[in-house]
Amino acid sequence: MSKITINQLHVALCEANSIMLTVHVRPDGDAIGSMVAFYEALVGQGKTVYMVVDDVVPEKYSFLRYTDHIHDVAYFETNPVDIDMLMVLDASTYERIGKVGALWSAPIFNIDHHISNTEFADHLYLKPNFAATGEIITYLCTKWNWPITESMGTALYMAIATDCGFFKFSNTTANTLEMAAKCVAAGARPNVISETIEAVSASRLELTKQVMQTIEFYKNNTVATIELNREAMTILGDDTDGFVDIIRNVDTVDIAILLKAEADDRTRVSLRSKGTDVNAIASNFGGGGHIRASGCTINLPLQEAKQALIEVIK
Amino acid sequence: MSKITINQLHVALCEANSIMLTVHVRPDGDAIGSMVAFYEALVGQGKTVYMVVDDVVPEKYSFLRYTDHIHDVAYFETNPVDIDMLMVLDASTYERIGKVGALWSAPIFNIDHHISNTEFADHLYLKPNFAATGEIITYLCTKWNWPITESMGTALYMAIATDCGFFKFSNTTANTLEMAAKCVAAGARPNVISETIEAVSASRLELTKQVMQTIEFYKNNTVATIELNREAMTILGDDTDGFVDIIRNVDTVDIAILLKAEADDRTRVSLRSKGTDVNAIASNFGGGGHIRASGCTINLPLQEAKQALIEVIK
Repeated sequence: MSKITINQLHVALCEANSIMLTVHVRPDGDAIGSMVAFYEALVGQGKTVYMVVDDVVPEKYSFLRYTDHIHDVAYFETNPVDIDMLMVLDASTYERIGKVGALWSAPIFNIDHHISNTEFADHLYLKPNFAATGEIITYLCTKWNWPITESMGTALYMAIATDCGFFKFSNTTANTLEMAAKCVAAGARPNVISETIEAVSASRLELTKQVMQTIEFYKNNTVATIELNREAMTILGDDTDGFVDIIRNVDTVDIAILLKAEADDRTRVSLRSKGTDVNAIASNFGGGGHIRASGCTINLPLQEAKQALIEVIK
Repeated sequence: MSKITINQLHVALCEANSIMLTVHVRPDGDAIGSMVAFYEALVGQGKTVYMVVDDVVPEKYSFLRYTDHIHDVAYFETNPVDIDMLMVLDASTYERIGKVGALWSAPIFNIDHHISNTEFADHLYLKPNFAATGEIITYLCTKWNWPITESMGTALYMAIATDCGFFKFSNTTANTLEMAAKCVAAGARPNVISETIEAVSASRLELTKQVMQTIEFYKNNTVATIELNREAMTILGDDTDGFVDIIRNVDTVDIAILLKAEADDRTRVSLRSKGTDVNAIASNFGGGGHIRASGCTINLPLQEAKQALIEVIK
């Protein structure tokens, strides 16, 4: 592994003729947005470019140009292509690109912003202070004077905005906003992007209504719980982001607890705090994490797990 | 009235020794944030500066520096001061500054971003393409090389973010994001500001839960209604923003309708659409507005008003 500079990255891209882009499994907005924008940028530089993901591309990103050019691993197994470079975007470990890694023997390049990056690539361009890989791609295009088209600006704005909670997370820096500004200057429309990304189905809204009925407060409203029962978990799958924020936004709440019924006798717990060390609470149940964000799994039905947690907190 | 350039504004501020700042009644985040930041900037330029608002400053803005220096009209009636300039920020009409206008005879200057500005001031600096007055103040400080302190950056970021829906409204431009970037570079912390501004009380969350139970869908989920009954209206007062967005975010919804029980036999209706001309619907009930955002008042109890509306839409 070697960490490379922006100029070394530039030279490598200039030298490559045929480039395969990929991102991590369970691709999010930053992964997909960064990939289709970088695809368009590299095509614009005269490269032959392919895109592969060892997963399904979520339907909600299909409004972005060139998402229909993304293929799965099976496609390239049937339609093999020679490449000079495997460019991995937004993935911090080799395992995160799934079966893509085994398909080609070309040098692996990695552009990423995760501090947890395992340095798995042959050549790594890591920017841990950037909020999103989309922020890095925008920065690179700007530095290299590669034109940012309207479709690239839209994809990159979506990438940046989804990874920094629409500029509400602590990873939002002046550079994050400056790069987002370049996307809007290129034609990205913030209102259209936020409306598209934040659209929910009527059934999802109905589920949210039901989940909100489970909210409970303890200790003078300083502790709050919200529950996803088995039925809700079946519908939601991994898509449980946001529920804990409903109670964390309450002014008096210090500890916000999301309880997820993973099975009838197993409950996954996410703890968020504004001050109290929730790592200590999670440790009581064999879990852990950070002072303000921790998790644990309790081998009890949800209601019993909740009571056990509240007892420990009291 | 004369419209002035940025240089004329600069000269006028340099010449003034004693400046009274004011904003519109029912002050919002942009008004308060712009005022306290401009206050600090002008004090930094050696000016004697006062702040007056003919209204109460909402408690949620008290985390900003110098909000405790804002006085009401009664204060200056008891403690009169001589001023060279009355600087009106973020107010588009003379009426919007309440009783402040009658208290001094100094020339009135107006810095504003509302396209609807009535040009009431003696000297007007209007930037209708700016999302917020806070964006204008940041721009002025940057152009004039006036230092932006951390507390100014925090106030101005809050001002900008609240007026463009945290960068989700269509008024968000590249310049909006660039000015927000300057605020963050000065020390503003986007996560702290968003958490502070978006904090809700436990009782407000309880009310939201109840209001969400009133959601109804019509016409294959393309029309949705949400209701604020008399009890909810008494608690909320003017603070009814956001409820219509709950249903507008549903992917299938074209027409989103917020019904507010202003009295037992009078219902205020807000209509939002993604395509259909809701101005035409509102006109049926003597109201109006724009194609995608209109309103009307129906002299019927809420449930009857709702039925009448749905009949017209069908």
